[in-house]
Amino acid sequence: MLEQDLEVRFGEKLRRVRTDKLISQEVLADKAGLTRSYIGRIDRGQINVSLATLYKLADALEVTPGELLP
Amino acid sequence: MLEQDLEVRFGEKLRRVRTDKLISQEVLADKAGLTRSYIGRIDRGQINVSLATLYKLADALEVTPGELLP
Repeated sequence: MLEQDLEVRFGEKLRRVRTDKLISQEVLADKAGLTRSYIGRIDRGQINVSLATLYKLADALEVTPGELLP
Repeated sequence: MLEQDLEVRFGEKLRRVRTDKLISQEVLADKAGLTRSYIGRIDRGQINVSLATLYKLADALEVTPGELLP
């Protein structure tokens, strides 16, 4: 999978899991210790997140890290 | 999970999967398009890998990315 495709698909997956749980970007950012704008850039497929960020997002959304992988 | 713990545990998991498949650091590096020294640093828990690197390593080891998550 091309890096750019991966970033877009991860953003889509993150957005879907977040919205399915009716959690806003602001609340996710706050719970994950990240900024809202960073969450927005991830959602738009602009960020190749690190493993640490993947785990922070998973903890904040109360899912396993694997469940966020596209 | 603390970022440092995550890096160490990811390195241990990557090393275990690689050695279980009798694949050397050199062969994994070559297949994943990374350097042997970078693989060594990941093994030693010194790198917070990106999602793209996680997928490259998983493809090279012929496992799912989720199987490399600690």
